[in-house]
Amino acid sequence: MKFAIGVDLGGTNLRIAAISEDGGLLEKVTLGTKVSLGRTAVIDEMTAAIRVLAGKFSKAGNLQGVGIGVPGIIDQQTGMLRESPNLPGWSDYPVKEEIERRLGAPVILENDANAAALGEAWLGAARHTHEVCMLTLGTGVGGGIVLNGRVWHGMTGMAAELGHITVDPNGPKCGCGNYGCVEQFASATAIVRMAKEAIHTGLAPELARAEIASGAEFGAKVVYNLAIQGDKPAQQVLKKAGWALGIVLAGLVNALNLRIYVIGGGVANSWSGFAPAMFAELQKRSFVYAATAPDNQAASVTEGASATLKPLGSSPRTIITRALLGGDAGLYGAAFPCCH
Amino acid sequence: MKFAIGVDLGGTNLRIAAISEDGGLLEKVTLGTKVSLGRTAVIDEMTAAIRVLAGKFSKAGNLQGVGIGVPGIIDQQTGMLRESPNLPGWSDYPVKEEIERRLGAPVILENDANAAALGEAWLGAARHTHEVCMLTLGTGVGGGIVLNGRVWHGMTGMAAELGHITVDPNGPKCGCGNYGCVEQFASATAIVRMAKEAIHTGLAPELARAEIASGAEFGAKVVYNLAIQGDKPAQQVLKKAGWALGIVLAGLVNALNLRIYVIGGGVANSWSGFAPAMFAELQKRSFVYAATAPDNQAASVTEGASATLKPLGSSPRTIITRALLGGDAGLYGAAFPCCH
Repeated sequence: MKFAIGVDLGGTNLRIAAISEDGGLLEKVTLGTKVSLGRTAVIDEMTAAIRVLAGKFSKAGNLQGVGIGVPGIIDQQTGMLRESPNLPGWSDYPVKEEIERRLGAPVILENDANAAALGEAWLGAARHTHEVCMLTLGTGVGGGIVLNGRVWHGMTGMAAELGHITVDPNGPKCGCGNYGCVEQFASATAIVRMAKEAIHTGLAPELARAEIASGAEFGAKVVYNLAIQGDKPAQQVLKKAGWALGIVLAGLVNALNLRIYVIGGGVANSWSGFAPAMFAELQKRSFVYAATAPDNQAASVTEGASATLKPLGSSPRTIITRALLGGDAGLYGAAFPCCH
Repeated sequence: MKFAIGVDLGGTNLRIAAISEDGGLLEKVTLGTKVSLGRTAVIDEMTAAIRVLAGKFSKAGNLQGVGIGVPGIIDQQTGMLRESPNLPGWSDYPVKEEIERRLGAPVILENDANAAALGEAWLGAARHTHEVCMLTLGTGVGGGIVLNGRVWHGMTGMAAELGHITVDPNGPKCGCGNYGCVEQFASATAIVRMAKEAIHTGLAPELARAEIASGAEFGAKVVYNLAIQGDKPAQQVLKKAGWALGIVLAGLVNALNLRIYVIGGGVANSWSGFAPAMFAELQKRSFVYAATAPDNQAASVTEGASATLKPLGSSPRTIITRALLGGDAGLYGAAFPCCH
C-alpha cells in the first residue's frame, strides 16, 4: 500500500491525516495548536504528529510524501509563502525545505482552496472528472481550478484568486484594494456586514433581535436560520450573495466551460437561501450556461442535494453543485499529488 | 516540407493560405466570396481554391490537413456549427465531413477567435509561451484561451466566450440576453453607440460634426482620431472601453494568472485611447496583476509598442499587449493544429 500524509494548516486547527493511494482515510488527528504560537511551535508539533502517523502505517505501507494545505499564496519555485495574512511571520521562511529536512520526505505545499478543489475532484462532488472550478465561501472567498487532473497554478502560483473577481464595479471596498469583489457579497463576513446594514435601516427587526440574542455568535448561520423561517430582510441578504455568485460563476462558465463548478465552505450550508438567485443570474448572464443547464438544476439543488454527474452524452450539461467532503477536502487534496 | 492550409471564413471575405510547418507563409489568397450567397457557393469556391493551393505545393511538400476558422460555436464532436449568426443556414450542415469528403484531407474546424489566439501563441505576440488569453475587439468581442499549447475548448467547445463576461451588472442590454457584457463597452459597435449617446447629450459637438461628415463610415476609428486630437467626449468614450477591458482582464488575471494577455481586432488600433484606463483598472482590481505588473507597462504600451516577452526569471511579470499578426492570426492558428 502506498500512502501520503495530508495536512490542513488552518487558522484555528491543525489537522493531519494519513490517506492511502486509493483515497482511503487511514487516520486523522486534529491538534489544537494555535498558529498564534508562532511558526516554530506549529512546525514542531506538526512534524511530531506526522512522524507518529507515518510510523504507524510504515509497516503496512510506503510513505510517498507530505502535502500541506496553507491559507496563502505559495511560491512553488522556492516553497515559501508569498503572502498569508493568517500566518504572520511565515513569509520569509523556507517552509517546504525545513519540513523536508526534518522529515526526510518530499513535501508539497499547496494553497488551501486549491487543495480543496483537488480533493473534490479526486473524491468529492467532481470525482468523475478531471476538471473542476471550486469556490470556498468562508471568512473570505477562496478559489481553486483543476485542469487535466492537476491544480492550475498559473505563472506565479496565484491563479484562481476567484474571491477577488469584481461583480459590482461600484461595490463595497475589499481588503485587496478593489471594490465590489465577490468576497464582499458571498463570504460569511460579507453576509454579516449586509445583515448589519439591514439592521441599521431599522427595517429588519428580526435580524436586530437575533443580533442582540446571539452576540458574538451572530453569523451567516443565524441569518440563514431567519431566512428559512421566512424573514424577508434575511432572505434579501442571502439573495444578494446568490446574485454575486451567479455573476462570478457566469464569467467562469463563459471563460472555462467546465463540466462542474463546486461551492464549498461554511456559507455553502445556506445553499437554499442563495442558490435560487444564483441560478437565476447564471441563466441570464451566461448563454453558455443557458445552453447547457440541466433541466431541473435550480429545483433539485435548492433542496441541497448534490447533483449527480452523468456520463457525457450528446448534450453535456454544466453542473453547479455543493461540495461533498466538507473540511476534509483540503486534507485529501493536499495528499493527492504525493501519490499520483 | 510539411504544410497545412489555413482558412479564415469571415463575414466579408474568404481568405486561404498555405502555411509551412515552421510557420512560413507560402501563399495567401483572398476571395471576394460573400457568405450571403449561401453555403454551397462558399464551400464550392473554398474547396476549389484549397485544391489549387494544395496542388501548387504538393511537389515540394506534404499537405497535413486543412484548418478552418469560423465565426461561431463549433461542436467539436460532430464538426457542425452550433450557432453562427454570420453564417445563416450552416448550423444543420456537416461542414467538416463535407469538406473532408470533397478534399480527401483531414479538416479541423475552429472558432475564429480561438484560432487567432492560437496564431498569436504560435507566431505572434505570445510566441514564446504555451499559454495565452486573447480578446479580439471587432464588431463584437471574441475570446480565445490557449493552455499547454492547445486551444482550451471546454466541455462543449464554448469556452472563452470572454466578450459576454459581465463588467457592469446594470449595464446596457447585450444581444446574448445579459446586461453589461464587456462587448457592450469595448467592441467597435459599442464605441459607436457610446459616441452617439454622447452626441445626444448635446455636449459632444466635435463627435456630432464627425458623425455627419463621415456618414455611414462613422466608426471606432473616427472616435479615436478625435480622441488623439484632444476631444474630451471622444476620449471619455475610449476611456469607458478601457475601464471595461480592465475589469474583464482583472478577472482573467485573477482566475488564470497567465503570462500574457493579448488584445487584437480593429479596436486594438485605438490602443493609446483605451490602454491607460485599462491598466489603471487592472492595477486597482487585481492584486495578482499589481504584484506582477512590469514597472513601465502602462507607459510603454500606451505608445503602441508590443511588450517583449523576457525569459521567466525569479519575478515573472504579467504582460498585457497588442496582437502582432493582425487579420492573419486566424489563418496561422487554423493551420497550426494540422501540422503540430
